[in-house]
Amino acid sequence: MLTFALFGAGRIGSVHASHVASSTACRLRYVVDVDAKAAKALAERHGATVVERDVAMRDPEVGAVIIASSTATHAELAAAAARAGKAIFCEKPIDLSLRRVDACLKVVRAAGVPMLVGFNRRFDPSFAALAAKVREGAVGAVEQVIISSRDPGLPPLAYLKVSGGQFRDMTIHDFDLARWLLGEEPVEVYAAGSCLVDPKVAEAGDTDSVMVVMKTASGRLCHINNSRRAAYGYDQRVEVHGALGRLLAGNRTPTTVELADARAVSTDKPLYFFLERYAEAYKAELAAFVDAVEQGKPMPVGPEDGRQALVLADAAGRSLRSGRSVKVKPPAVSSASKKA
Amino acid sequence: MLTFALFGAGRIGSVHASHVASSTACRLRYVVDVDAKAAKALAERHGATVVERDVAMRDPEVGAVIIASSTATHAELAAAAARAGKAIFCEKPIDLSLRRVDACLKVVRAAGVPMLVGFNRRFDPSFAALAAKVREGAVGAVEQVIISSRDPGLPPLAYLKVSGGQFRDMTIHDFDLARWLLGEEPVEVYAAGSCLVDPKVAEAGDTDSVMVVMKTASGRLCHINNSRRAAYGYDQRVEVHGALGRLLAGNRTPTTVELADARAVSTDKPLYFFLERYAEAYKAELAAFVDAVEQGKPMPVGPEDGRQALVLADAAGRSLRSGRSVKVKPPAVSSASKKA
Amino acid sequence: MLTFALFGAGRIGSVHASHVASSTACRLRYVVDVDAKAAKALAERHGATVVERDVAMRDPEVGAVIIASSTATHAELAAAAARAGKAIFCEKPIDLSLRRVDACLKVVRAAGVPMLVGFNRRFDPSFAALAAKVREGAVGAVEQVIISSRDPGLPPLAYLKVSGGQFRDMTIHDFDLARWLLGEEPVEVYAAGSCLVDPKVAEAGDTDSVMVVMKTASGRLCHINNSRRAAYGYDQRVEVHGALGRLLAGNRTPTTVELADARAVSTDKPLYFFLERYAEAYKAELAAFVDAVEQGKPMPVGPEDGRQALVLADAAGRSLRSGRSVKVKPPAVSSASKKA
Amino acid sequence: MLTFALFGAGRIGSVHASHVASSTACRLRYVVDVDAKAAKALAERHGATVVERDVAMRDPEVGAVIIASSTATHAELAAAAARAGKAIFCEKPIDLSLRRVDACLKVVRAAGVPMLVGFNRRFDPSFAALAAKVREGAVGAVEQVIISSRDPGLPPLAYLKVSGGQFRDMTIHDFDLARWLLGEEPVEVYAAGSCLVDPKVAEAGDTDSVMVVMKTASGRLCHINNSRRAAYGYDQRVEVHGALGRLLAGNRTPTTVELADARAVSTDKPLYFFLERYAEAYKAELAAFVDAVEQGKPMPVGPEDGRQALVLADAAGRSLRSGRSVKVKPPAVSSASKKA
Repeated sequence: MLTFALFGAGRIGSVHASHVASSTACRLRYVVDVDAKAAKALAERHGATVVERDVAMRDPEVGAVIIASSTATHAELAAAAARAGKAIFCEKPIDLSLRRVDACLKVVRAAGVPMLVGFNRRFDPSFAALAAKVREGAVGAVEQVIISSRDPGLPPLAYLKVSGGQFRDMTIHDFDLARWLLGEEPVEVYAAGSCLVDPKVAEAGDTDSVMVVMKTASGRLCHINNSRRAAYGYDQRVEVHGALGRLLAGNRTPTTVELADARAVSTDKPLYFFLERYAEAYKAELAAFVDAVEQGKPMPVGPEDGRQALVLADAAGRSLRSGRSVKVKPPAVSSASKKA
Repeated sequence: MLTFALFGAGRIGSVHASHVASSTACRLRYVVDVDAKAAKALAERHGATVVERDVAMRDPEVGAVIIASSTATHAELAAAAARAGKAIFCEKPIDLSLRRVDACLKVVRAAGVPMLVGFNRRFDPSFAALAAKVREGAVGAVEQVIISSRDPGLPPLAYLKVSGGQFRDMTIHDFDLARWLLGEEPVEVYAAGSCLVDPKVAEAGDTDSVMVVMKTASGRLCHINNSRRAAYGYDQRVEVHGALGRLLAGNRTPTTVELADARAVSTDKPLYFFLERYAEAYKAELAAFVDAVEQGKPMPVGPEDGRQALVLADAAGRSLRSGRSVKVKPPAVSSASKKA
Repeated sequence: MLTFALFGAGRIGSVHASHVASSTACRLRYVVDVDAKAAKALAERHGATVVERDVAMRDPEVGAVIIASSTATHAELAAAAARAGKAIFCEKPIDLSLRRVDACLKVVRAAGVPMLVGFNRRFDPSFAALAAKVREGAVGAVEQVIISSRDPGLPPLAYLKVSGGQFRDMTIHDFDLARWLLGEEPVEVYAAGSCLVDPKVAEAGDTDSVMVVMKTASGRLCHINNSRRAAYGYDQRVEVHGALGRLLAGNRTPTTVELADARAVSTDKPLYFFLERYAEAYKAELAAFVDAVEQGKPMPVGPEDGRQALVLADAAGRSLRSGRSVKVKPPAVSSASKKA
Repeated sequence: MLTFALFGAGRIGSVHASHVASSTACRLRYVVDVDAKAAKALAERHGATVVERDVAMRDPEVGAVIIASSTATHAELAAAAARAGKAIFCEKPIDLSLRRVDACLKVVRAAGVPMLVGFNRRFDPSFAALAAKVREGAVGAVEQVIISSRDPGLPPLAYLKVSGGQFRDMTIHDFDLARWLLGEEPVEVYAAGSCLVDPKVAEAGDTDSVMVVMKTASGRLCHINNSRRAAYGYDQRVEVHGALGRLLAGNRTPTTVELADARAVSTDKPLYFFLERYAEAYKAELAAFVDAVEQGKPMPVGPEDGRQALVLADAAGRSLRSGRSVKVKPPAVSSASKKA
């Protein structure tokens, strides 16, 4: 029975809280949030207690923390939790600054605590099944990966201004997917981007439409395309091409209903956004974390994965500004190369 | 907060128990089962108590019962619950004998308690969305309904012998779907059947492969096909044809992964069987029951629906034996005609 | 080089004429039609000559005739062609009267000439590939066949009045498909029907919406559904269920374009009607006929197939009127049983 | 009636010859090929005559030439035909050297003869329907275009050595598609490439796997991915994303047959290669050429389109070698900007 303290009572914190509460393998003891009202409501719903951060960190019964607070607080909370010997489930990103990420990871490594970084796509049933088939050799040696990731609509401008930019906020998920599916570390990144959805995004110094090409040491290629707005909803698709064939994983729909009438044959739009599309993934992600902590297994997505995705995002930013591809140093120990 | 007593701690009882337990709108107080061990295990998992039937029936805190015990006990338990003033959630069928169903319904009506009969397909997201579109007029006046329902494999022969036969055990779901989707009561039933899967089924006096055609008073037509064995899993599909077009609802798959290789392009088989395919339906069914009881709304599937499906099943049996279509009396108050 | 005389310069005659003309294996010498203008236009387009019927029948260079004139003339033309020793390509049906069909077949058999009856669906690439897979055992022993065949819209009432009724005009194609796919002869037929599309059809004594169930001697089951009107176009689908799985063949669309917008995900409607859907089939059908004549191979669809489809259509008519299933005598030599 | 001389009696020349021969709007008079045997066989099949090049060029009855000979001869034949006043149907590419293309186009422009460059994809029913929908505004302003083009297998190495490299031989089709669908000229090109299929390709100084990103002046983005080998056949897909939604056009299959068995649900692989996939496109392309010549309409794909695709291919080559994006000058008169 793993006991949790949750930091952050917002939208995604609530999702994790309900999974902790409904699991027989763990329980939610504390909720910590600067928004006292949100903390109270969430704690009451699940029979938890609202406390100050240090109370939660010091309680020896707490075995694990979930960090679902605002991005700027992640690295410091993770370091504090590491020092307190807690297992860490940290929403992505660890931080928007590579320097702060490195400082955090140093503490985590020194403490020897397990840490999962919340790249939800790895736990999506379709993407996970696709990755498993890649590893089983269903398409032979991987040659090209193509990732399409498009949000239903622009987030509020206020959010965009603190998001770290499209590569670090949105594409970062795809950089992680790319590493996971390529089976090798990307060592070269090219990015092009535009502001096509809303000129206010450009005024904020950001892009809303990007295309990336990456290359690994042996020449495997990866393309990512992103848009901040897809009129038909959340578009999340992956293709892996290999010597023996092609694997695709596409969108899910609420129903299988198909209407044929005088105009067309039509079906559902994709599930609306990440809370709907990745509902099963969030549940599986928490279960995998609990399982790894309880059984002493390796974390399916570790802090180095969180770091390397940020390295690629930063390289994409430099490429966007310079118009040339940017070399990237692979991590000392690559989790990608072990996986496919 | 609706308090439940559950009768039956088997497979389907466990499904309902977990939905009661995980809902904030109700709680599970009692589990009753002749299998003491199963009752104890289930009760412990959800913080309920194992009691004798009468204790549960007499407890005034119990507002509702779930009847998920063996078929032969349904009618009598429902009648007892009705006399005790409990709301009734009864797994299908109410009984295999129309006479006993009528006796039961008489008690239920006299008691004035709400009763839902567990036709899970009505709560499947795809079938429910299709039915909603039918009612919104997406295909205009309904003309033909086609229902394909095929199980992944034969149940144990021991079960088959007490099942009441394929029409009353399996097709009964489709008879209910047909009434729901046709928007009119079937008044004529023809059935043909064979034993193609396993000769032991014929020895037990039953069929394993059937085809039904029904007709309503205004001439709407409905076809049902069933098999006790589909090598690729559970096949559950519905088509509604109307003046303005066609609606289909098909199978769901575990993932959206598609593999293209030198041999073919291949995708997942359908979700394996009813526990997988109708997982969401069981949850929605219980929520609809609780909502109807708590809000005093009409039950989405009432006892008369349970009765009329049995009437159609019995007519199909007579048709199968006689080789001619059999006239069926519609219920005094048709729920079908109100719905589309 | 097979030389053809064509009887009938209408829509379907023109289709066959263009296939004869564009093939290097045959040529079109004569066009015969009571409509002199139509005959002339068609003959000119393909370098053929308009002649009287007897000229064509007597010309020893003519090796084969295509009978694409009105239904009432088929049997007599076929008999005349048989007597003249010509190979016969006869549009379906041979005749609407079983008595006249038998008289015709007697002449054909006596003459020993090869004869193909134009059941176009057998030459559709998708249906043909499905049938080939059935024969290769892809689904094991066949258990159930389901055929959906729906026209885009009502033909003119004048046509309906001479069509012989829905079973002999429309369902006859499906009766042939059923025999071909079941791998056994149906021996029992049940049919239900209504007039739902247009009350004028009922006034003409016909149905526009039918459902059929058939059974073979070993218990294989077949369902057919027909409608004279599908708002979304021509719906032509087949399912074969067997011990090892299921085969489907569905509609074809003009393009693969898919549009996702704020409303839905939509694709093309099916190809509009038989001239579009069976364009490839008509070409393959003629090629198969020429090949069989030139190489002395058995005809893929012979006159007995034409006869037996009519037997089933007539049985369906009797069942519709009586409300009971009708026994059918299989042909002395079954082509169905040889095929799967 | 347009009279043709055909240069080149190989595979693609034969395709064009059969379309000319089977059309009532044109006829094939001459076949010219250095391979006398091939020329003779093709000419005989279609009632044409084998002649020397100059005979064909000088015959005033010849209104149009088809240039389907080896790439190295295209530019010079086109110039000669232009000087002779013939309309020109020229297989892609005009030449592998931009200098020779320019010299050729100068002659063509001076002669004022119409010229079509054979980018077959523009005439594919699915791609053409998609492009028409883009122009009708179905997805609003275009933002991103994604083109996947993968061949079933490596061509012979001997061919690869004279092909001009993957960008000028294969991607050139996609550069043309991109211009057509973006509705604006690309002004910046980035390309990455590898040799993953066969090391002999690298030895020949070429790539077999490439990814391209292009940008237009207003910031529209385009991605192209290519592989010389797809184990499942010919993969030809296009996506256009705009402000209002997404259009896809995918592969076509030989049949619609779907098999569900104990292993998976499987369907056909795509049509095998360009002769199969673009069979309808080749026919439509010739018809469009004849129509434009006879009616004096603008050519749907003109010589400037052939030139600009080569400009983009050359830019991709420079980007591949330099690792940076390369600026491209749009044509003086852009056909792309007029089109969407």
